[in-house]
Amino acid sequence: MGLSIGVDIGGTKILAGAVTEDGEIVKTARRDTPHSDATAVLDLVAEVVTELARTVDTPIDGVGLGVAGPVDASRSHVYFAPNLRWSQVPARALLEAATGLPVVVENDGNVAAWGEYRFGAGRGSGDLVLVTVGTGIGGGIVLGGRLFRGAHGAAGEIGHANAVPNGIPCGCGRNGCIEQYASGNALVREARALAAERRPEAAILLSLGDGTPEGVQGVHVTEAARAGDPVAVEAFEIVGTWLGRGLADLAAILDPDVFVIGGGVSVAGELLLASARRTLNSKLVGLATRPAPVIKVAELLNEAGLVGAADLARDR
Amino acid sequence: MGLSIGVDIGGTKILAGAVTEDGEIVKTARRDTPHSDATAVLDLVAEVVTELARTVDTPIDGVGLGVAGPVDASRSHVYFAPNLRWSQVPARALLEAATGLPVVVENDGNVAAWGEYRFGAGRGSGDLVLVTVGTGIGGGIVLGGRLFRGAHGAAGEIGHANAVPNGIPCGCGRNGCIEQYASGNALVREARALAAERRPEAAILLSLGDGTPEGVQGVHVTEAARAGDPVAVEAFEIVGTWLGRGLADLAAILDPDVFVIGGGVSVAGELLLASARRTLNSKLVGLATRPAPVIKVAELLNEAGLVGAADLARDR
Amino acid sequence: MGLSIGVDIGGTKILAGAVTEDGEIVKTARRDTPHSDATAVLDLVAEVVTELARTVDTPIDGVGLGVAGPVDASRSHVYFAPNLRWSQVPARALLEAATGLPVVVENDGNVAAWGEYRFGAGRGSGDLVLVTVGTGIGGGIVLGGRLFRGAHGAAGEIGHANAVPNGIPCGCGRNGCIEQYASGNALVREARALAAERRPEAAILLSLGDGTPEGVQGVHVTEAARAGDPVAVEAFEIVGTWLGRGLADLAAILDPDVFVIGGGVSVAGELLLASARRTLNSKLVGLATRPAPVIKVAELLNEAGLVGAADLARDR
Amino acid sequence: MGLSIGVDIGGTKILAGAVTEDGEIVKTARRDTPHSDATAVLDLVAEVVTELARTVDTPIDGVGLGVAGPVDASRSHVYFAPNLRWSQVPARALLEAATGLPVVVENDGNVAAWGEYRFGAGRGSGDLVLVTVGTGIGGGIVLGGRLFRGAHGAAGEIGHANAVPNGIPCGCGRNGCIEQYASGNALVREARALAAERRPEAAILLSLGDGTPEGVQGVHVTEAARAGDPVAVEAFEIVGTWLGRGLADLAAILDPDVFVIGGGVSVAGELLLASARRTLNSKLVGLATRPAPVIKVAELLNEAGLVGAADLARDR
Repeated sequence: MGLSIGVDIGGTKILAGAVTEDGEIVKTARRDTPHSDATAVLDLVAEVVTELARTVDTPIDGVGLGVAGPVDASRSHVYFAPNLRWSQVPARALLEAATGLPVVVENDGNVAAWGEYRFGAGRGSGDLVLVTVGTGIGGGIVLGGRLFRGAHGAAGEIGHANAVPNGIPCGCGRNGCIEQYASGNALVREARALAAERRPEAAILLSLGDGTPEGVQGVHVTEAARAGDPVAVEAFEIVGTWLGRGLADLAAILDPDVFVIGGGVSVAGELLLASARRTLNSKLVGLATRPAPVIKVAELLNEAGLVGAADLARDR
Repeated sequence: MGLSIGVDIGGTKILAGAVTEDGEIVKTARRDTPHSDATAVLDLVAEVVTELARTVDTPIDGVGLGVAGPVDASRSHVYFAPNLRWSQVPARALLEAATGLPVVVENDGNVAAWGEYRFGAGRGSGDLVLVTVGTGIGGGIVLGGRLFRGAHGAAGEIGHANAVPNGIPCGCGRNGCIEQYASGNALVREARALAAERRPEAAILLSLGDGTPEGVQGVHVTEAARAGDPVAVEAFEIVGTWLGRGLADLAAILDPDVFVIGGGVSVAGELLLASARRTLNSKLVGLATRPAPVIKVAELLNEAGLVGAADLARDR
Repeated sequence: MGLSIGVDIGGTKILAGAVTEDGEIVKTARRDTPHSDATAVLDLVAEVVTELARTVDTPIDGVGLGVAGPVDASRSHVYFAPNLRWSQVPARALLEAATGLPVVVENDGNVAAWGEYRFGAGRGSGDLVLVTVGTGIGGGIVLGGRLFRGAHGAAGEIGHANAVPNGIPCGCGRNGCIEQYASGNALVREARALAAERRPEAAILLSLGDGTPEGVQGVHVTEAARAGDPVAVEAFEIVGTWLGRGLADLAAILDPDVFVIGGGVSVAGELLLASARRTLNSKLVGLATRPAPVIKVAELLNEAGLVGAADLARDR
Repeated sequence: MGLSIGVDIGGTKILAGAVTEDGEIVKTARRDTPHSDATAVLDLVAEVVTELARTVDTPIDGVGLGVAGPVDASRSHVYFAPNLRWSQVPARALLEAATGLPVVVENDGNVAAWGEYRFGAGRGSGDLVLVTVGTGIGGGIVLGGRLFRGAHGAAGEIGHANAVPNGIPCGCGRNGCIEQYASGNALVREARALAAERRPEAAILLSLGDGTPEGVQGVHVTEAARAGDPVAVEAFEIVGTWLGRGLADLAAILDPDVFVIGGGVSVAGELLLASARRTLNSKLVGLATRPAPVIKVAELLNEAGLVGAADLARDR
């Protein structure tokens, strides 16, 4: 079998790669995402795909495209992608016309979940939920060894399950979504608030930015927590506890064998996961009498989407 | 093909029936559930099954048994069933030995979901969630035309997703489960509280019981609401609104095409569903740009479990 | 006795008046609040006071000044006033130097509460809480016939009692303050959200603005609710219910005989108060065995502060 | 001046004492509270008072009686006292008739607050709130050096301010009262839940009872926490954090200079107060620009009520 190409279109960059059927990346390419309309973005994707195909000098079986928004059940049409300002884009038809290759389009959380399931932390599992903890919360679901898309392609919006009635307003227009409590943005918000209250304890954390609570950024919290800053450690515990609550709800509904935690915040590892695991174990319904899901850190990180998209392209 | 037998073991009665492959019940039998150990209960089930098999005078292909508790992935073993005080019961082996027929054991929410999917309100759907609103909240999930059990047989515990952090204590040992807000018990609690505050308005409702708020029962609330009692109507709206919130969370994660609402409270129909539907539509993430799930009332009611269990028995 | 002068410094305008000992306003003056520092604002206040004093041709006993921020126990010093960007302003000393008149400085909620207590809806009460429902929530407390200031002049910040743990962020830097749920801003937020979901029902409401949910303003909600728009009526009920919860908490702690509801939203009268009163009556601890506070609409409205400040000036 | 007698009628015992005008107890007496009607209880109180008066051989100026329920504004009539099953009891008239001494009747939280204000941890303060953390939460308020009773004698029910909308049901008939989160009962509930989840860590705590989480009692939690049991320490932190939230709300409304924390749980001292103080300081509105209330532990403990009641008897 030949190679397939996976493409992950993010809000700031396009990441593409030619991938073997074993999930090995043989060649990658990267571009800044243009601030123009969907046609221009897909033209650039076509250019990258064509370039990759020419470089690797091997037949390309197909292209898998991951986009940050819900995709219809035929994996052709992007309903909307807020970060790209796309609405109702027939991405498959456009990209097939431009490249002459077969294309499947898929939600970005879904391709990442598939990548981790096939070649990453989820290898060997049956029912897996990927939870990506980045600025927001995304995810994807693999059930019985198949990517689960829902009836209309919109399944897996796990960041928008409600955590707090009448809670913090969410970018989605509603209130109290778990994304407002268990994400990287929440981590920074909590760290800033704690640092403002307890400046002397937050010396390490504050020293990494401009010295003010408002100057604290996500990477500072991780670095400070690793160095033992008690305020940064506590911010991770607060966010990890909310994450664990979210996982307990997912487990009540889906009962997966594995939760894979990805996204930028997941590099903090046990700083985040210890409190998430403790909370999951204390909030899991019927815990004493049933097996519990395992929590793992994602292995493929930024490449999960690319690798998953490439693999789904074979599976038309 | 012959008949199969479905059995639904509830806390108070055992309901069994011989069912055609088209879901038609040709003969039923019913017993009070004995207050003794699992062996005695299963002996009685075996007696009922044998009696039904003899009566219908047709070959029986198998037996499907629904039990109110999680069942292992091989559909043999009941982890625990609190209403029956069962723990770790090898129900399949015991019942196969006693009847000589092939048996599958399944969670009661799962068999009811399968029954509605195959022969009830969910016919023709692909991804369906059954939500049974009885004294508590149960349910079952059918995805891609297959019953979804989760990795350990414990999926579909939708009544125990969290609705309110630090909320009302639940029988499961945790706090704030949606079951405490959107169930028949919640309906009675709300109706009693409203009736205590606003007695003059609750004249119809109070007249159906002993005249006191404490005497209000679930059937009174439904009857009074149908007769226009404003307090009973409001109690349904409160509970329906919570139900809609729960459905919105399920839709964010699972994106089904149909929610089927069953259980004793579902006979109230639009009294419950109007506010649930309104809330689902206002809380569904990305509503304007995606199709929404439909809410339907269950059609098979008490027989959904029996019919679903019988059908699953063919499907070993 | 002569007249006294009351001054209410708001974020957009300065309102001043010469007032008799019976609370009658004999002459008023008004200026836009300058966007400059505290000294410039107080110079303008001095100018207005001097002009009023000259015009009325009667001895002026003193000046009472209301400012939107906490004032120290000696009624001299403004700790901070966010709308005016004041911090640590010795307002009494500055204004006494500029006018040659005795001055008392007081929080704006306090002077309004005193005005309503002496000459408005609270006449004859003993323990009164004024709740001003404007863009935010403010208030003042009169206990045993005396203005209650607290140990440090910061009592009466009733808009910042917590209503929802981990709730909507507040301008004060914390989360879930009752001000985020029971204020005019909350009314507009709820009305917009309901109008976006149920456009056909919100025809009257939408017709008063630019036709979009985002174009809905506070005055539109009141006007539409009066005309029977169901969405506007529901927005008032939601906000009134939260207001009633806040009043129930205040009653548990303070047990006043009267709540006076003022602020711009209070002109809606029973649209707001019916659900507030119903909620207070259902949430008041020990209701059946104790007298309950009465809820009244403020009578002096915009002039409550001016009149109250003038009266407090006599009472040094 | 002579002595006065203070009496504290609790659900299980009657505690009485003869007290000097400096708050010194010269003689005490104690009886079990009879399980009979109000007349029998007050007869026993009269007997104790007469005995004390005879023993001390000094003129008695009056009797102050503390009862666990709201008392009318004339300090004569007990509206209701749930622990004693009293309803509408004219306690003052009955006790004056039986003893021939002048009597004042007062709420138990009020007399304790007055005792701590005059002779305990609140000496020298102006505005004080006593928060008694026992099985539930009670309290009393002293403002401007006077006991604050509210318009109907029902002020100071601070345990029944709402902490969580739709939260844990309270004995008062409503949901989510702070008493359900920051009391001794909450401490035991949290300790049991944590011990059930994390038995190995709770070794000290479990060893103090019968070895099971259900066997954990309040005194065990305090003793185990002092011995370093991490589960017991965490239970105190959870409850102390809720207590701090409650204090922040009281401070927003009342701005006292001192919070005195009494009740059985307060003997744990900093185990409870460290997290309460940290939370108050982080949740106090306008913290950076205003003085904050101080948190102190009660000094008079069980005798606060007796001493306060005796002192109020002088102050008719």
